[in-house]
Amino acid sequence: MHEQDIRFLTDFHEVAKIGATPAGGVERQAATDADRQTRDWFASWAASEGLETRVDAIGNMFACATLVPDAPYVLVGSHLDSQPRGGRFDGAYGVIAALHAVSRIAKDAQQGKFTPTFNVAAVNWFNEEGGRFAPSIMGSSVYAGLFELEDMHNVTDLEGATVRNELDKIGYLGHDTPPVAAGYAEVHIEQGRILEREGINIGVVTGSWYTQKLDIEVIGEQSHTGATAMADRRDALVAASKLVIAVHDVTAEFEAEALVSSVGQFVVEPNSPIVVARRAHLVADLRSADPELVRAAREKIIARATEIEREHGVTCIVQDFDIRPKRYFTEAGIELSEQVLEAQGFSHRRVYTMAGHDSVAMNFRVPSVMMFVPSVDGVSHCEREFTTDADLVNGLHALTGVVTRMAEGALADERRWEAHSVIQPALTQ
Amino acid sequence: MHEQDIRFLTDFHEVAKIGATPAGGVERQAATDADRQTRDWFASWAASEGLETRVDAIGNMFACATLVPDAPYVLVGSHLDSQPRGGRFDGAYGVIAALHAVSRIAKDAQQGKFTPTFNVAAVNWFNEEGGRFAPSIMGSSVYAGLFELEDMHNVTDLEGATVRNELDKIGYLGHDTPPVAAGYAEVHIEQGRILEREGINIGVVTGSWYTQKLDIEVIGEQSHTGATAMADRRDALVAASKLVIAVHDVTAEFEAEALVSSVGQFVVEPNSPIVVARRAHLVADLRSADPELVRAAREKIIARATEIEREHGVTCIVQDFDIRPKRYFTEAGIELSEQVLEAQGFSHRRVYTMAGHDSVAMNFRVPSVMMFVPSVDGVSHCEREFTTDADLVNGLHALTGVVTRMAEGALADERRWEAHSVIQPALTQ
Repeated sequence: MHEQDIRFLTDFHEVAKIGATPAGGVERQAATDADRQTRDWFASWAASEGLETRVDAIGNMFACATLVPDAPYVLVGSHLDSQPRGGRFDGAYGVIAALHAVSRIAKDAQQGKFTPTFNVAAVNWFNEEGGRFAPSIMGSSVYAGLFELEDMHNVTDLEGATVRNELDKIGYLGHDTPPVAAGYAEVHIEQGRILEREGINIGVVTGSWYTQKLDIEVIGEQSHTGATAMADRRDALVAASKLVIAVHDVTAEFEAEALVSSVGQFVVEPNSPIVVARRAHLVADLRSADPELVRAAREKIIARATEIEREHGVTCIVQDFDIRPKRYFTEAGIELSEQVLEAQGFSHRRVYTMAGHDSVAMNFRVPSVMMFVPSVDGVSHCEREFTTDADLVNGLHALTGVVTRMAEGALADERRWEAHSVIQPALTQ
Repeated sequence: MHEQDIRFLTDFHEVAKIGATPAGGVERQAATDADRQTRDWFASWAASEGLETRVDAIGNMFACATLVPDAPYVLVGSHLDSQPRGGRFDGAYGVIAALHAVSRIAKDAQQGKFTPTFNVAAVNWFNEEGGRFAPSIMGSSVYAGLFELEDMHNVTDLEGATVRNELDKIGYLGHDTPPVAAGYAEVHIEQGRILEREGINIGVVTGSWYTQKLDIEVIGEQSHTGATAMADRRDALVAASKLVIAVHDVTAEFEAEALVSSVGQFVVEPNSPIVVARRAHLVADLRSADPELVRAAREKIIARATEIEREHGVTCIVQDFDIRPKRYFTEAGIELSEQVLEAQGFSHRRVYTMAGHDSVAMNFRVPSVMMFVPSVDGVSHCEREFTTDADLVNGLHALTGVVTRMAEGALADERRWEAHSVIQPALTQ
C-alpha cells in the first residue's frame, strides 16, 4: 500500500475516535461538542496541507485549493456529523477521502501533472443526518438554494435549541462567502448489500428513490390509568401504536422490497407510567423507486388513520413533508466515472440510492457524481456499520481520479438543472 | 355557607394558581419549582394558624397541633404534587382540607369542645404521583417503612437528577423527626363516576384493587430507514407497538371493566426520523378487583411478547414490579365514617379505589380512613378534572368529623397491621 493511502487510513481511524462509542460507532450529532471536535480536526488538517478553510453561515466548511484564480470550484465532500449511536463510516469517510483527494489533486496540478480548468475544495456539509435538527441534508440544501438560510437557522431540536445558537456555541456560525461550484463529487458507503453480494468494488449511483415523510399527530385525552374505565379512554398511545403497525404492514401489500417504510421518531405525552397519553407524535418515512407505490401506501395509511380515529375517539392530523422526487445523476458524470474506474481496473456497476445524500442536493445545481464502496452486511446508521480498509482506499482512488477529470473540465459543458424545474425541492436523507 | 368554608374554598382556589396551566389544570411535578411554591404556601399557612411545621428526610411536610404532650398524632393529608398537566383537585384538595380540619379540631380541643386522646397533624406527602420519580406514593411509603429512604433518595428522573438533590435544591430535604402516627385519614376526589352517577355525597373506601406493573424493554437493531431492506430489520418500535396493543386488547378477554390495563410511559431510542429504532422501553399497568384476572392478563401479555420476539427478531425483557396486593381498610374505620356521615346528613356508599393513594401506604401501619367526593365525568390526571365547591365543602366537613372522633380515640383499639405480613410491599398509584 502506498504511503499516502496509509496516511489516509490513519486519518480516517483517528477521526473515528471523536465521539467514539464502546460498540465501535460514533455519536456526533450536528452542532454538538463532538461535531465541533471533528470540525477543528478538519480545519487543522486543511491548514497543515496549505488549504484555505472557509465556513459559511449554515456551518458548511470548505477546504479550498485555488489553482486557477477566479475560476469556480469542483466541490468534493460529505458530512462529519452522525446519527445518535451511528456508524463511523457514514459521511466521515467521504469527507476525509475528499480532503486527501483535494490535497493530492492540488499537488498534481502544481507539479504540472495536469492542467486545471477549475479549482478544487473539500467540503464538510452541516447536518446531513437530521437526527437532531430536521430536515436532514441541511447544509448542502442551503448551499444549493433548496432551503432558506433563515428558516434553517430557526430550526429547533427536541430541547428547543436553535441551529443558529448551537452553531454559534460551537464556533461554527461562519461569515465566509462559500466557493462557487462548478461540479460536485462524493464517495460514500453503500448502506446496502448489492456491491458486497456481487463482489463489486465501486457502485456508480444513477439516481435516487422517490421519498416522502408523513408527520402524524394523534390527539386523545389524558386520564388516570387506574381510575378510568376502558370504555371512557381516548388513548393516544394505543392509537399511535396502531399507526406504527399500519406503516410497517403496508409494505406487505406490494412486491417484496419494492417499498420500504418506517417510523423512527415517536414521542408520547405526558409519558407518565400512570397516565393515559393525551398526545403522540410520529414521523413515517416511505421510499420506493416507483413514486406510485409511495402514493398508494400513503393513501392506505391515511385510510387506516381514519379508522383508528373512530376506534379510539382520537384525532389524527396527517401532514405530508419532505417529498423528494426521483432524481437522476447526469449521464455524462456516470460515464466519466465508468471510464475512470475501467482505467483504474476496478469492477463497477450502476446502482440506485434509497438513502438521501448531500450529492442529491448538489445535483439540483451542478453536474454531480456519486460513488459507493461496499458495506459489510449492508448495515448503516448503526454501530456495527463496517467497510474494509481496502475498499476505503479503492474509493479514495476512484474519487481522486474522477475529480481530477472534473477539475480538468470533463463535465464543464453539462447543462445545470435549474431549481425552477423542481416541483418540490425538500429533501430527506 | 359558613365563613370558614369560604376561607377553605378561597385557599383551595388560591393554591390552584400555582403551576396553573391555560386549560385549567396544574403542572407541579415532585421537587420542581412549582412544588416548592405549594410547599412554601403550606408552611406559611401553618405558621399563620399556629401549627408547627416539620419536614422529614423524604420531603414530607407535617403541620402539627400538639394538644396532648407526648401522645401520638392522627395524621390527615394527601399530596400537593401533580401529574404533568394534571388536574387541580387530585391531592391538593386533600391537603388543604387537612390543614383546615386540623386547625378547626385544634381550636375545638382548646375551647374544650371535646377531649383529645391524640394530637393532630396535616400532611403533604412527597411525590405521590410518581410521574417524574418512580415509584409513586413515595413519601408516605417511606414514612410507613415500605420503602427504604436511601433507595428513594437515589431514584432519578429521566434526566438523571436524583430525588435527594432535587429536594435539596428546592429546600425541602428536611432533618426533622416526623410525628408518630396514631391513625390516618384522607379525603380525595373519586376519579371515577360511581358517586356522580348515583348522586351520592361521600364514598367510604373499603379497599384497593390488586395492581401490578410490567417493565418491558424491547431490544432490536438500529439501522437506516432508507437503505435497510424490510426483511433485514429488527425494528424495536414496531415490536413495542404490538405490545402496547396487546396490553390494551387483553382486557377484552375478560368481563367488561373487570380489568383495566394501559401503557402510559413509552420511550424509543434513538428516536430519529430516519433511523429504525434499536430499543423501546415501556411500562404496562394492570389493575383488577380480582388478583387472578391480573395474573391471567400478565400471562397472556408475556406469551404475546414471545410471539413478537419471533416475528421481529427482537428481544423482550419483561419484569414484574410494583405489585400491590388487594388491601382492605379497617372495618371499624369504615363504620366510624358511616356514623359521622349519617350524623352530618350526607348520603354515602362504600366504594373500592382502583387508584393508589397515600392512605393505602398508611393503612399498612395505622388504622386509616379514606373518603371520596364526586368527580365530574370521572376524569382525572387531566386538566379538565372537576369537583364542585359544594362537594369540596361536604368532604371537608366529613373529614373534620371523622378526624375529631379519631383524635378522641375512636380507633385507638384497632389492631395495626404489621409490615411483615405483607408479601410485596411496593405500591403504585
